[in-house]
Amino acid sequence: MARAPCENTNMLLRDLQLKFGGERLGEVTRPLEGVGTIERATESEITFLANPKYRTVLAGTHAGAVILSEKERDATTKPRIVVSNPYAYFARVAQLFSPPISFMAGVHASAVIGSRARVAASASIAEFVSIGDDVVIGENVRIGAGSVIGNNVSIANDTHLVARVTVYANCKIGARNLIHAGVVIGADGFGFAPDFNHGEGQWQKIPQTGRVLIGDDVEIGANTTIDRGAMDDTVIGNDVKLDNQIQVGHNCVIGDHTVISGCVGIAGSTKIGKRVMIGGKAGIIGHLTIGDDVIVSAMTLVTKSILKAGTYTSGTPLMPHREWLKNAAHLRRLDLMANKIRLSANKMEEGE
Amino acid sequence: MARAPCENTNMLLRDLQLKFGGERLGEVTRPLEGVGTIERATESEITFLANPKYRTVLAGTHAGAVILSEKERDATTKPRIVVSNPYAYFARVAQLFSPPISFMAGVHASAVIGSRARVAASASIAEFVSIGDDVVIGENVRIGAGSVIGNNVSIANDTHLVARVTVYANCKIGARNLIHAGVVIGADGFGFAPDFNHGEGQWQKIPQTGRVLIGDDVEIGANTTIDRGAMDDTVIGNDVKLDNQIQVGHNCVIGDHTVISGCVGIAGSTKIGKRVMIGGKAGIIGHLTIGDDVIVSAMTLVTKSILKAGTYTSGTPLMPHREWLKNAAHLRRLDLMANKIRLSANKMEEGE
Amino acid sequence: MARAPCENTNMLLRDLQLKFGGERLGEVTRPLEGVGTIERATESEITFLANPKYRTVLAGTHAGAVILSEKERDATTKPRIVVSNPYAYFARVAQLFSPPISFMAGVHASAVIGSRARVAASASIAEFVSIGDDVVIGENVRIGAGSVIGNNVSIANDTHLVARVTVYANCKIGARNLIHAGVVIGADGFGFAPDFNHGEGQWQKIPQTGRVLIGDDVEIGANTTIDRGAMDDTVIGNDVKLDNQIQVGHNCVIGDHTVISGCVGIAGSTKIGKRVMIGGKAGIIGHLTIGDDVIVSAMTLVTKSILKAGTYTSGTPLMPHREWLKNAAHLRRLDLMANKIRLSANKMEEGE
Repeated sequence: MARAPCENTNMLLRDLQLKFGGERLGEVTRPLEGVGTIERATESEITFLANPKYRTVLAGTHAGAVILSEKERDATTKPRIVVSNPYAYFARVAQLFSPPISFMAGVHASAVIGSRARVAASASIAEFVSIGDDVVIGENVRIGAGSVIGNNVSIANDTHLVARVTVYANCKIGARNLIHAGVVIGADGFGFAPDFNHGEGQWQKIPQTGRVLIGDDVEIGANTTIDRGAMDDTVIGNDVKLDNQIQVGHNCVIGDHTVISGCVGIAGSTKIGKRVMIGGKAGIIGHLTIGDDVIVSAMTLVTKSILKAGTYTSGTPLMPHREWLKNAAHLRRLDLMANKIRLSANKMEEGE
Repeated sequence: MARAPCENTNMLLRDLQLKFGGERLGEVTRPLEGVGTIERATESEITFLANPKYRTVLAGTHAGAVILSEKERDATTKPRIVVSNPYAYFARVAQLFSPPISFMAGVHASAVIGSRARVAASASIAEFVSIGDDVVIGENVRIGAGSVIGNNVSIANDTHLVARVTVYANCKIGARNLIHAGVVIGADGFGFAPDFNHGEGQWQKIPQTGRVLIGDDVEIGANTTIDRGAMDDTVIGNDVKLDNQIQVGHNCVIGDHTVISGCVGIAGSTKIGKRVMIGGKAGIIGHLTIGDDVIVSAMTLVTKSILKAGTYTSGTPLMPHREWLKNAAHLRRLDLMANKIRLSANKMEEGE
Repeated sequence: MARAPCENTNMLLRDLQLKFGGERLGEVTRPLEGVGTIERATESEITFLANPKYRTVLAGTHAGAVILSEKERDATTKPRIVVSNPYAYFARVAQLFSPPISFMAGVHASAVIGSRARVAASASIAEFVSIGDDVVIGENVRIGAGSVIGNNVSIANDTHLVARVTVYANCKIGARNLIHAGVVIGADGFGFAPDFNHGEGQWQKIPQTGRVLIGDDVEIGANTTIDRGAMDDTVIGNDVKLDNQIQVGHNCVIGDHTVISGCVGIAGSTKIGKRVMIGGKAGIIGHLTIGDDVIVSAMTLVTKSILKAGTYTSGTPLMPHREWLKNAAHLRRLDLMANKIRLSANKMEEGE
């Protein structure tokens, strides 16, 4: 929904070079009309080589041109652009060929707008959108169909809520965000005090009165949820990229440029640094600190703070189930096994 | 929402046999009005025995009749039908007693329909549905309340989007699908190129211009998300069954008849074969190939391609936490332990 | 959305004592206007000390008053209240300062209400809400924007569906529930009978004709899904607290006061007792029984019934990835390793 192929963009390699720089070797015989993967690009498309593993595939590509690194400059004889970061260069070229779809400014007749809400004239509010009191909607903001924006929310310029997004009261969303369908921002954090006496009683809710504050250039994937703070706020930095179905607990802080893959769960009050990368389905328990530039592997459970940059992992390797059964049984007696080894070693020493 | 008990269906065992075949032993004294579990079925309901574990429970059933296999033909003296696949037979009988709910064709007055959209006269478009430009909606399609259908989407005959489903632009959905509430089809895949230099810079978005193509007879559970392809398409085969809260990354391909349980995450570009079964909360990393008839256990992380049919598992067995603490500590020194064993063995050999 | 700071509440410590009891030591010099964390509370806010770990932080707090336990009564000289359960006391005080937001009774003009639906005059039905036939909505119930309520649903007094909640036909929701955005209650359970013959055929759907029955005082987090029963019902007890993005399979039964953290998946037909606590991202396979007062650690996979109270864990500890690689490799040959140890031990015994 965010981008569409632009039918009238025709580019020579020289045009790309003028826009984005790089060293050009050769020129295409017909103008480029888009981008493609090495395997499927056509003669009118440009592709890229970032991973040397794909060098052999490059030989068979039908792409009209290639973006590659200095090291791979002679990996093809096709017209090409040589740059230090082929993948980022390719991203810019792809963006050029897929400019943002134009949209109509204005508020759909069916939308419900609260009292004292200020919606920029350049903004677009789609059908069945509910906007609360005192909301501020910036320039060129798009709020997609079926979204619900609570009281006193602010959404800065050029942000796009695609469809069916919910933002609870008082949350603040920065500029140039892309927030996908089904996202829920600012639901109550999970906070209850046990109030039981001899088995009687019930959980007492801690009112969740903090907010969610989201920086600029953030992307949030479909059905991801970010809870509001209990008393203080939940904070998402600038240029943070969250994939689908991530859960961010109350009072978490996520640093700039951090990237989190799908289905990750982060429990409350955990602080995550800058440029952290978290693999899919990982979990991080609450009240931890994860330092800058840490990498967490897929499906890893982080149970203690990680202050030193590097890659961290938990879990066991994949096995055929029969082998797993044989091996996993010993995990239940690993301590016994360790004791036996110690005893053997001791005996042997005695025997010497 | 999809089915309702049909109050006027009264069936003898003979009627079922006529419709669905099987060998009939005896006849019910009062007509059957529905299906039930072995434990709770009443005299006017029919039940089934598929798992021999439940044979002892069968003795106490109040069901009026039983569907069972050749092997279990004498496990009860009740009126019964003997078939090769009692569970599938039972499913057909249950479907007979719970026919699809009838619905009114037509477009609700509140629905917003885009330009050049073609909606079959037999289709039903509920309240607060938003349908984009150039959309094609087939015969008997139902689009439930609050759904958002992007531009140029097509939805084939007899498909049912229950409520609050989002389908992004250009995606194609086959016939006879059942898509549950909160599903998001075609949100952007997670693709960003790092564009940092000495700590400065930001992530460059790779425009996600592919589509999601979904086959026929697919069921998709509540709040599941299927991302659109980056350049090529994400493809879901025929008769694929996806449970709730599954995440399918961009450019994945899922083969016919594959069944995936709840909360599974599949990273981008992974190809999954036919008749694959994936247990709940499993994860599959990106760019892998999973062959036909592979079974992945619950909460298993698949980190490499699996070409051979069979069951695959990772993870550790459940333990009381105290035992786990004692055993798990050794996982951090398993390599040391292995060395010690090797040393002992060597010493012993020397000593011999 | 559920609560807002109440600007006119000004309380002395004595007022709190009058309302909630406890032993009072001293009095605030200026009235209390709210609650805060130990680190951030201001002079006009009250905080609490429940975890002795924070005793050192207490020295630096700017809070005007503190709630603490008998054991910690002298941990500060500030005005304070001494009680047996400081956290629960704090919760009550916080609730006092954040009373439920008032709302307007009535049905928004855009809402669609089915035939024979009974909506209490004190209830509030927001914009773009769809309510089916024969629905019963109790006193003071709030149904937030974009919610979809199926036929024959009942929702008891004082329950609040925040926004974009889907409740499928025939489900029953108790009193004083708080159900967050994106929740789906009553979607079809995942039940299909394989009906293949020599590779031909397809999955046969088992119609999911049971309901979801939810007790009183339940909270359900954003984007959580609870499937309807296959034939019998899925049942959620009283005072159950479910965090975000939880999946509850068909025919599960969850006992009173049980608390489940985010991203947990529970497969079908599992029975969970009372006061059970399940950590984030844990999984429980189907057809199990989990007894009262069991605690399941984060990301643990429960593969068999747990009848005895206590804490249970699976998984492996976090390691730097290099260490993990060295150690994890041995998990594939743990059985061999165990054999070697046994052989060594035997040899040694022979040698003795």
